[in-house]
Amino acid sequence: MTSASDLPTADDERLAILRRGLESGSVQQAGRMLNALQPAEIAHILESLPLGQREILWNLVDPEHDGEVLLYVTDDVRDGLIRTMDPAEIVAATAGLDIDDLADLLADLPAAITQEVVTSLDQQRRERLEIALSYPEDSAGGLMSTDTVTVRPEVTLDVVMRYLRRFKEGLPQITDNLIVVGRDGRYLGVLFLTDLLTHDPEDSVAEAMSLDVAPIRASWSAREVATRFEQHDLISAPVVDDDGRLLGRITVDDVMDVIREEAEHQFMGHAGLSEEEDMFAPVLLSARRRAVWLGINLLTAFLAAWVIGRFEDTIEKVVALAVLMPVVASMGGIAGTQTLTLAIRGLALGQLHMDNARWLLGKELAVSVINGIVWAVVVGVIAQLWFGNLDIALIIAAAITINLVAAAFSGAVLPLLLKRLGIDPALAGGVILTTVTDVVGFLAFLGLATIFLL
Amino acid sequence: MTSASDLPTADDERLAILRRGLESGSVQQAGRMLNALQPAEIAHILESLPLGQREILWNLVDPEHDGEVLLYVTDDVRDGLIRTMDPAEIVAATAGLDIDDLADLLADLPAAITQEVVTSLDQQRRERLEIALSYPEDSAGGLMSTDTVTVRPEVTLDVVMRYLRRFKEGLPQITDNLIVVGRDGRYLGVLFLTDLLTHDPEDSVAEAMSLDVAPIRASWSAREVATRFEQHDLISAPVVDDDGRLLGRITVDDVMDVIREEAEHQFMGHAGLSEEEDMFAPVLLSARRRAVWLGINLLTAFLAAWVIGRFEDTIEKVVALAVLMPVVASMGGIAGTQTLTLAIRGLALGQLHMDNARWLLGKELAVSVINGIVWAVVVGVIAQLWFGNLDIALIIAAAITINLVAAAFSGAVLPLLLKRLGIDPALAGGVILTTVTDVVGFLAFLGLATIFLL
Repeated sequence: MTSASDLPTADDERLAILRRGLESGSVQQAGRMLNALQPAEIAHILESLPLGQREILWNLVDPEHDGEVLLYVTDDVRDGLIRTMDPAEIVAATAGLDIDDLADLLADLPAAITQEVVTSLDQQRRERLEIALSYPEDSAGGLMSTDTVTVRPEVTLDVVMRYLRRFKEGLPQITDNLIVVGRDGRYLGVLFLTDLLTHDPEDSVAEAMSLDVAPIRASWSAREVATRFEQHDLISAPVVDDDGRLLGRITVDDVMDVIREEAEHQFMGHAGLSEEEDMFAPVLLSARRRAVWLGINLLTAFLAAWVIGRFEDTIEKVVALAVLMPVVASMGGIAGTQTLTLAIRGLALGQLHMDNARWLLGKELAVSVINGIVWAVVVGVIAQLWFGNLDIALIIAAAITINLVAAAFSGAVLPLLLKRLGIDPALAGGVILTTVTDVVGFLAFLGLATIFLL
Repeated sequence: MTSASDLPTADDERLAILRRGLESGSVQQAGRMLNALQPAEIAHILESLPLGQREILWNLVDPEHDGEVLLYVTDDVRDGLIRTMDPAEIVAATAGLDIDDLADLLADLPAAITQEVVTSLDQQRRERLEIALSYPEDSAGGLMSTDTVTVRPEVTLDVVMRYLRRFKEGLPQITDNLIVVGRDGRYLGVLFLTDLLTHDPEDSVAEAMSLDVAPIRASWSAREVATRFEQHDLISAPVVDDDGRLLGRITVDDVMDVIREEAEHQFMGHAGLSEEEDMFAPVLLSARRRAVWLGINLLTAFLAAWVIGRFEDTIEKVVALAVLMPVVASMGGIAGTQTLTLAIRGLALGQLHMDNARWLLGKELAVSVINGIVWAVVVGVIAQLWFGNLDIALIIAAAITINLVAAAFSGAVLPLLLKRLGIDPALAGGVILTTVTDVVGFLAFLGLATIFLL
């Protein structure tokens, strides 16, 4: 009987207790607590720990959980954990894994160990591994698992139920339907377990099955699969080849991972980080990765500096320009980032295409003209009050309007352009946009000043 | 029989066809195509259309789908669609909805219509609506649905199967288990349909049920629910009150929405946008919302300008400072954004807490010192080559190192600080960080120059 006191607490509380236990040195107790958890929970705790503590805890994890835990941590953390294991441990960790999970893991193992793992498989598992490895990781084929339970359309539900009772070890995880296939292996429909249970046992599978679940082609991208799952509230869906023959099925837990990774890619990408970044990565590794992004951005900063350098004489004569110029660049950067963010999201959700892009561009330009004028007036008035110079006020007002329009244009056009060029907009969009708004901002402001003030 | 030619195409292709049909004026055909789709697909298409076309298509949607489509579109789009409907249409649209969905929708309806909708409900539905409305929308209670199928532990599986056959209209959507409750309404465990089907029909529910699915408390946050679902690969989970009594259940489709919204909130938030933002919102509405964010950022830009203004005399004497100062501010902004992004993600995933924050801070400070020195040397050398002035080169090198350390400190500390103050780090973090890196950058560079150059 569940009483109030043994109701579950949220995971966070449990993790905090465990972390404190570890810090106070009660290692054995921490190990017992840890191994009572799900692999995903163990993975979450490992990711929340700094490197030293993470290694201690990883050694406490029951070897039979090792493989599954490795599946749940991000790539970066996984690399670190694998590096602490010897080859025999790694091979042992892969032993109990599903073939599709094993395929994902193999990509991150050292080549020598991959070979050992493959050799350790029996004939049937090796063949299924080859199929799994033949699809890109981010395609439907790469997401699918091959452990399906199939039935024929002509048998009765009663026969199906007797058949299922032979699965003494249980059905595959997340089975909400049985897949109905013809004699030639072609996909025909699904028999939901709920329909199996509510229909007359004398009905045939063909009578009770659902035709609503359209099969997914193995060649679809992971993103298309995710959209399909979200729009149809699917739990699992069959995967077919180009001839409609059943290859496997995809389950919602893998789709949730796709959605999370996609979203994180966008969020982390705008700061030049990978979604697989480990918060507690070694200092030198982090420093090296960050340095690349700082270097790229330094190029754009020096490009902006070079533009300012063209106007040294002007600035020397009117120092107020140096004081105000960051305002022009910054307003453009902010406005452009808003448009860019909206467009990148639209692209990721499949709502922005070439054929509605001109609508977005038109709207964003209109918004930028309105905000350009509004903020031009505000900034102009402030500049006038501060420096008592109407010319400077008018020039900064004009420059801000110009920069906001340029920002809207770049923000709306860049993502589609980059995508067409095969460049990832989530990663490159922000840098390029800032370059545009910095250069246009300084050029417009200092250029107009040179023309009208000198 | 499924042949190669009638295999499904990805949704995007279908949408493109529909949009082109609409643009070429074949409205009736578009309407037929539209109403053959799932409500979520219709919602996706409406969101992909500019306002004018969106209204035309919305009028073509079969009124019986109206309610469900409204559930799937983002808040902004929903407001727009509701505004085109008359009160009778709105009340009709809500008629077929589940109570938990209705509760979500009511929040967005004009008060007068809410009253009409509530009046249109029968006694039982009204009571269930009151329960649903008594929990915050982003809590487990707000996510749960009350249509559960429960069984008693002492009956046999055979009896359960006969009971289920009475559900001629099918079980509730996404039923992967039946909830086992005692006579007092307390939650005891779940009977997975897969276990029901694979166990001996003579077994009792108590023998076949699983105790692994810990119940969720109605008071949990949506984020805690999502973590639980992701870590345990759940399809549905029971929700209980503080006494362990069953209140309802949460299904994975609603959890996927939570994950998507949370991730979008982070991504859109860094540009000051709401995750509910409509890409094709009316120009004036968009302009007004963006203006707020531009205004907030203008304050920080003028704060930076004011700092520069303190050093007008210095700049007048050494114009090179004006040319180089944006480089210092920009490098700090980029480095700080990286740390901030990592910390916000860690916070959102529940991996960053007060007790591991000092580790992150230590690591980020170490990274910033390394990159500070590396890029100080690079920028110093470039400055020396450009302006042939060793003093300026040394000063900019020192300023960059100082700013990168300040950036790492703010980036790591801000999210936890803001969260403790009840301010949303995803929204406010970026603005505050940029203010810090701008001010520290200009102050360090121009301040050092004033001391050592004049």
